[in-house]
Amino acid sequence: MTARVVDFETVDLRFPTSRQLDGSDAMNPAPDYSAAYVVLRTDHPAVPEGHGFTFTIGRGNDLVVAAVRAVANRARGIPVDDIVGDLGAFARHLTADSQLRWLGPDKGVIHLATAAVVNAAWDLAAKLAGKPVWKLLADMSPREITDLVDWRYLRDALTPEAAVDLLERAEPGRAEREARIRREGYPAYTTSAGWLGYDDAKLRRLCQQAVDEGWDSVKLKVGADLADDRRRCRIAREIIGPDRRLMIDANQTLGVAEAVEWHRGLAEFGIWWFEEPTSPDDVLGHATIQREIAPTHVATGEHAHNPVMFKQFLQAGAIGICQIDACRLGGVNEAVASILLAAAHGVPVCPHAGGVGLCELVQHLSIFDYVAVSGELENRVIEYVDHLHEHFLDPVRLRDGRYLPPEAPGYSAEIRRDTLERYRFPGGGAWH
Amino acid sequence: MTARVVDFETVDLRFPTSRQLDGSDAMNPAPDYSAAYVVLRTDHPAVPEGHGFTFTIGRGNDLVVAAVRAVANRARGIPVDDIVGDLGAFARHLTADSQLRWLGPDKGVIHLATAAVVNAAWDLAAKLAGKPVWKLLADMSPREITDLVDWRYLRDALTPEAAVDLLERAEPGRAEREARIRREGYPAYTTSAGWLGYDDAKLRRLCQQAVDEGWDSVKLKVGADLADDRRRCRIAREIIGPDRRLMIDANQTLGVAEAVEWHRGLAEFGIWWFEEPTSPDDVLGHATIQREIAPTHVATGEHAHNPVMFKQFLQAGAIGICQIDACRLGGVNEAVASILLAAAHGVPVCPHAGGVGLCELVQHLSIFDYVAVSGELENRVIEYVDHLHEHFLDPVRLRDGRYLPPEAPGYSAEIRRDTLERYRFPGGGAWH
Repeated sequence: MTARVVDFETVDLRFPTSRQLDGSDAMNPAPDYSAAYVVLRTDHPAVPEGHGFTFTIGRGNDLVVAAVRAVANRARGIPVDDIVGDLGAFARHLTADSQLRWLGPDKGVIHLATAAVVNAAWDLAAKLAGKPVWKLLADMSPREITDLVDWRYLRDALTPEAAVDLLERAEPGRAEREARIRREGYPAYTTSAGWLGYDDAKLRRLCQQAVDEGWDSVKLKVGADLADDRRRCRIAREIIGPDRRLMIDANQTLGVAEAVEWHRGLAEFGIWWFEEPTSPDDVLGHATIQREIAPTHVATGEHAHNPVMFKQFLQAGAIGICQIDACRLGGVNEAVASILLAAAHGVPVCPHAGGVGLCELVQHLSIFDYVAVSGELENRVIEYVDHLHEHFLDPVRLRDGRYLPPEAPGYSAEIRRDTLERYRFPGGGAWH
Repeated sequence: MTARVVDFETVDLRFPTSRQLDGSDAMNPAPDYSAAYVVLRTDHPAVPEGHGFTFTIGRGNDLVVAAVRAVANRARGIPVDDIVGDLGAFARHLTADSQLRWLGPDKGVIHLATAAVVNAAWDLAAKLAGKPVWKLLADMSPREITDLVDWRYLRDALTPEAAVDLLERAEPGRAEREARIRREGYPAYTTSAGWLGYDDAKLRRLCQQAVDEGWDSVKLKVGADLADDRRRCRIAREIIGPDRRLMIDANQTLGVAEAVEWHRGLAEFGIWWFEEPTSPDDVLGHATIQREIAPTHVATGEHAHNPVMFKQFLQAGAIGICQIDACRLGGVNEAVASILLAAAHGVPVCPHAGGVGLCELVQHLSIFDYVAVSGELENRVIEYVDHLHEHFLDPVRLRDGRYLPPEAPGYSAEIRRDTLERYRFPGGGAWH
């Protein structure tokens, strides 16, 4: 008997975070952190379920859930062994319905949905392998890793052969780096202090708290009012001192020249990176900004929807920090593609996280990046936001501002059943 | 009593075109041409309804309809005078829900939905003005036209002031050009001959038919097999003769180097433009292809989701032909922005059409472009596909391979009520 995907379940899961202005920024004043959640069900005795999700900020999560159903339907009936045996082919199969592809292509609602289903398949594969996803990836051969990627549009920047070379060069040190991560964890930074909706007193208190907790970088949301931002950066720098890192994030609110000006107004506070200065689609705009604000790095990626975008940001020298997102990209496979592209261009990957469960996912990607791809920790940090982790079966564990590697098999994606019921929109108890 | 938008209706409209392989290409083997259709209803006695839609190719049209409902809901209660008095502000209002914006931003399902609602508002405004949309636009002052555009991300390529200058330079000739279009119509080309699913005999017959009907350009779908494409281009060139124009369209199937090679294999047949050679997101890839295949033009745009993409294609010299789409862009306002950008860069706009009603819409945009913006007809053609026009109340009218300007008030977007019932998915009679 061949075990197959026999069914799936979706949940429109929303947390009423807008009530506290958690997560507020210049573009997104009042998000309700949400997940379009999917459980792939199999008749395999060892792995009955794979859990995955994508992240949204509230209204419209129902559209993504409906898209997840359309995409997950393509997984129905596929043998589990075929999925876990060729996760690249499975991801390509999900996106190969030309009628659904038209809705993107490879972007927006349909691509967010693809991410949820691909992530669920990786959860399934890792559970069957008895490993966390980062370890499943880090134990693959260079060829197995490059086979995960759809190279059609990427070869002008990196060929699969060159990617194999890059991975082979990193192979000798894998065991040593894995041991180091188990010992020391992966560096993180916190965004919890700097949400735009917080007043100065709260900003001051949270910056101090970040210092007290051992963080060595802090990120502030900017972009609504330059005078306010100057005041807030001054407060932050005063509290974190001259040596810790300060990053700013405009959440796409500025034009190209405006972003350069904004940076000029804040440069005296010592900015490590300037995140999402302008439209996430504007590769050439970011390249102009990067030229103007160096040595401050331009950072972007949480809204970069596929590896073709990262390819261009890297080709154009438009970013100094590559912020992949585990759910905006079409799941693990496109994240692997982007990590390979970044490594080939010598640009550090510092994933976007926060939201619902993004920290849980991206820790796997960054640890894989370190162990098997870049081999570097310098200038690499995973975003950390201290929200909503309690809803996960295998939540992130931090020690001294560093992520400890997840140990449980899977993608750390599984949300507690009572949470799925309580925060189900609109019927769950939290929404009464 | 202030007249307002009081309600809206949506229809999931699908035509079973895949049964004949109409519209088949290398990426889209079997589309069912569809529209996510919306009617904005008002209590204004003169304009009870504005009709709009966006185009998809089948499965997933339900997702877009659901998104249209989310976007159209933002129009509810807005005074008709406010909408028609400031269509720029109305379009910005529709996209200003940050939670819905997250699902794009400005791309994919949510942006297709925005297009439908924006287009419906233009239909409403033009009906109230008693003019077709092209005439409503062409009668606006330069400042009124630039006020339609969201300039936030565009100023590094074109400032509103420079756009006003450009429009003012074109003002003196408006009346003369309008008269010319009324006399002669706007040039068109046909894609009906070259769908990939057609066999050689049908290709030969349809090319001959195109010649007999007076067309002077023909476009073939390519990209699945180069040897087949060489044979098909040879047939087409043989029948259309040396002087008519031959265009090819790969529908995104190729990588960058592959596209250059493909062109090399077909160049002997005399190619005017090479359409969608690769990923629609790949500005830098198109720039490379354009450098390599000149003087053949690279053409793209039907999947370019917003003016930031066109801005970059133009800045990078990546396209010689700008193929805006009336429904992939967020409606008339973003089309106007893209037309201004193209004019400022001296690149001809040749809109994508076909599908359901795209011909009906883009004729307005091209005529406006000629009368009030570029003032040029050279190297400008509107795509024409002879499908599904019979379902429109005010279908396109062609004479000698040229579009005659629509005369009825509105955006030519209104579909017959019996069609809305018969092709409604899945309940309509055509789907039984």
